[in-house]
Amino acid sequence: MWERLRDKRMAEKIVTAEEAASWIENGMTIGLSGFTRAGDSKVVPVTLAERAKHENQPFGVNVYTGASMGADVDSVMAEAGIVLKRLPFQADATMRKKINDGSIMFVDQHLSHTAELIRNGALKHIDFAIVEAVAITEDGMIIPSTSVGNSNIFVEQADHVIIELNLAQTDALEGIHDIYTPAKQGEREPIPLVAVDQRIGTKGIPVDPNKIKGIVVTNIMDSPSSIVQPDEETAQIAAHLINFLRDEVKAGRLPQNLAPLQSGIGSVANAVFNGFLDSEFTDLTVYSEVLQDAVFDLLDAGKIAFASGCSITLTDEKMKHVTENFAQYRDKLLLRPQEITNHPEIIRRLGLIAINTAIEADIYGNVNSTNVSGTKMMNGIGGSGDFARNSRLGIFVTKSIAKGGKISSIVPFASHVDHTEHDVDVIVTEQGLADLRGLAPRERALKIIDNCAHPMYRDQLRAYYAEALTRGGHTPHVLEKALAWHVRYAEEGTMLEQEPALVR
Amino acid sequence: MWERLRDKRMAEKIVTAEEAASWIENGMTIGLSGFTRAGDSKVVPVTLAERAKHENQPFGVNVYTGASMGADVDSVMAEAGIVLKRLPFQADATMRKKINDGSIMFVDQHLSHTAELIRNGALKHIDFAIVEAVAITEDGMIIPSTSVGNSNIFVEQADHVIIELNLAQTDALEGIHDIYTPAKQGEREPIPLVAVDQRIGTKGIPVDPNKIKGIVVTNIMDSPSSIVQPDEETAQIAAHLINFLRDEVKAGRLPQNLAPLQSGIGSVANAVFNGFLDSEFTDLTVYSEVLQDAVFDLLDAGKIAFASGCSITLTDEKMKHVTENFAQYRDKLLLRPQEITNHPEIIRRLGLIAINTAIEADIYGNVNSTNVSGTKMMNGIGGSGDFARNSRLGIFVTKSIAKGGKISSIVPFASHVDHTEHDVDVIVTEQGLADLRGLAPRERALKIIDNCAHPMYRDQLRAYYAEALTRGGHTPHVLEKALAWHVRYAEEGTMLEQEPALVR
Repeated sequence: MWERLRDKRMAEKIVTAEEAASWIENGMTIGLSGFTRAGDSKVVPVTLAERAKHENQPFGVNVYTGASMGADVDSVMAEAGIVLKRLPFQADATMRKKINDGSIMFVDQHLSHTAELIRNGALKHIDFAIVEAVAITEDGMIIPSTSVGNSNIFVEQADHVIIELNLAQTDALEGIHDIYTPAKQGEREPIPLVAVDQRIGTKGIPVDPNKIKGIVVTNIMDSPSSIVQPDEETAQIAAHLINFLRDEVKAGRLPQNLAPLQSGIGSVANAVFNGFLDSEFTDLTVYSEVLQDAVFDLLDAGKIAFASGCSITLTDEKMKHVTENFAQYRDKLLLRPQEITNHPEIIRRLGLIAINTAIEADIYGNVNSTNVSGTKMMNGIGGSGDFARNSRLGIFVTKSIAKGGKISSIVPFASHVDHTEHDVDVIVTEQGLADLRGLAPRERALKIIDNCAHPMYRDQLRAYYAEALTRGGHTPHVLEKALAWHVRYAEEGTMLEQEPALVR
Repeated sequence: MWERLRDKRMAEKIVTAEEAASWIENGMTIGLSGFTRAGDSKVVPVTLAERAKHENQPFGVNVYTGASMGADVDSVMAEAGIVLKRLPFQADATMRKKINDGSIMFVDQHLSHTAELIRNGALKHIDFAIVEAVAITEDGMIIPSTSVGNSNIFVEQADHVIIELNLAQTDALEGIHDIYTPAKQGEREPIPLVAVDQRIGTKGIPVDPNKIKGIVVTNIMDSPSSIVQPDEETAQIAAHLINFLRDEVKAGRLPQNLAPLQSGIGSVANAVFNGFLDSEFTDLTVYSEVLQDAVFDLLDAGKIAFASGCSITLTDEKMKHVTENFAQYRDKLLLRPQEITNHPEIIRRLGLIAINTAIEADIYGNVNSTNVSGTKMMNGIGGSGDFARNSRLGIFVTKSIAKGGKISSIVPFASHVDHTEHDVDVIVTEQGLADLRGLAPRERALKIIDNCAHPMYRDQLRAYYAEALTRGGHTPHVLEKALAWHVRYAEEGTMLEQEPALVR
């Protein structure tokens, strides 16, 4: 352990999780490390939840994170009822339920915005930062583990810092982080990053040692990723997308090795990356949030030259392989704070190809990424808005139907809008791809219906659009029927009309 | 004239407007200077429209601009039916009608995106750039007039350039432009701008002289701004906003001189700026698109230290004053390309306070800036998305009702979404202000209803929200009633329910 706790002043700060948890008071705000299950603070939050349950007194805290925590942490905190407010993202079933019944206030933020809002004092001040580390250096710098997330801003802004020194995380991770924290708005220089593999910061999180109130030694692996493997439909989505990118190269709009790739969390996005394995593309680069299994498959296959991310989130099997062979990856990887991986300045400068998952898209290209049927939160917008708005190509992928065809992912009117028509360049389903760049709404509608909608819904969509055209407008709609598909699903269990419309 | 045409090689390029217009062929794409009526190419497009009318053959062109053109240009082109596709913004009644009846395809773009899309080849290649200038320098550089807009990218990317050398525009404008054009995505450096008054580019638009196909000498003033003067309600909006900013300073979240201010085009935004005249704030800076009357009033009053914009758009009277006294403004002004004034990199770095106008906002803070009743285009999103997303404070202003109360600007569900809940920090009406930062949807709803909605609609909004709560969800809605207010307005001419709801 002592080779990981190299700042000897820190020895006296080692405490039990119970003691650390005892410092957190009712009403406080805590900032936790953790991004897409990786590198989360695993012990103190859970111990805090248990303490609250035993004390049997009203107790609640505001919980800021990077993104989603490991499986246990979010569900235990949610179940214990100790979360007053949560931001900027989550992906846990228990927490989701509490958000949707109104007992947890969830602020669904662009992942690049949280640090800025904290720095500006627009969010409640952080009392305790609780961050996982693989080491504390001689000069007191915190070396994060498998994610950086918002840990740097939490540590900078919090009154006190608790470190979970996790011996289960390989110490080979030391050296793959690049920590850069912008100054205040109006007082900052340009972020100097101009290439995916460029180092611009420090190898750990600088911290005033006096702020470190306690160190808890832990020994727990990250929760493994729960992504499902590619299926026929996600493979089709990948194929459509790769064909499109191939055509962009032919047209001279993309270089041979494309542009830095970003892909959202989840199975569809992972499957799309998988599609590159069998493609002709090499020397690819990744500038993304989460590095999932497929990124490592592509590194193994020599397809990816360099991958910059904010976290490494892997399935159990892949995690073993990567941990055991970390030496072969360490020169090809960098982990950065989410403010930098998702920063509009960098995304725009590098001109990313951004691939994110939609829950639904409407016939004009507005995308819902968060609220099922316009009301029920799934996970959150995450980085999809940061990337789609500022990328070279804002691509959204989804299967054309869900629940065996009872839900169409292409609808007349998005029941919630996270990405407006102004930000959505391309929509891809297993049916095909709609390139919406430079198209007016009336041009987009038929393209999306014809190329992306499932055949079982195409006539019904065409009938809606035909009726909408009789009403006119730049964005024609039949307002009294615009949300009827969602209402029908709620009432009848399917979006499909009983008598399929015959209008073409 | 010759002191304005200082590159003598250019003398032989002087042609009539008719000759210049004769070069434009059916199906071509033209890129026109002009931003919010200022510095538009005034003669060749109109001559082209007349030519097309006389020839009586099918004729159409794609028209790219900075933003809106002067009154005549857009209406004449629209009326002549020569516009196939138009982007990224317009504000003309005739053109609006044609867009809404589907005869002009309008692509409603973030104003910072157009240049990037052209550079990437994602939009149709530009055949002719037609740009207004006050001078052509010895070394062949084009000095724009009262706006820069997209002229630099049009000139860079077009096959041919036609210059309208406008003798009616004061040559005192030479020296107030700062032209900076980023390189391709993936090959560019950080944009070096870190202060509002910083010069980073050239004083004119560099051009290969061989690309200049013709110079048309013109003598027409810009169309004057048609903004209406502040009224009681816009003054109340300004007062609420200034109180809020005062509180932000007190709380230490803003410096004494605030942060660089941006305000959208139009009467409400102008009125808000007017509100600063009687405030205690001094040493203000502006980093905006259009510089309207109020900016010059504030410069005259010594309230604004420096204003950076993309165009100067003034009422008739103000234009006379400014033109006659230009010497006193020239050290306090810079005009930049819209790609730079609206660039997310700069907006985020400087941490702007962005004030833009909403058509409607819903109870969760989603804002519609473009499509009346979800379908009929008003003007376009303009720069509001560039600014709201990336600013320090994304503020939207609107009067709480329109058409004498028949329309509520606060609705249950936005009929079109241009700015999502993730991007909207503050909503202000004459009724009051809702600070939405760090709030979950359920917290936002009551704040928006109580603070911003007109009293005549508050109970009706509360009744909707109360019913929505019985359905649950992160963003509670009664989907079958979500758009009922807009439907009622279409059918009954008012959003107001006949029997006001009594639920509280």
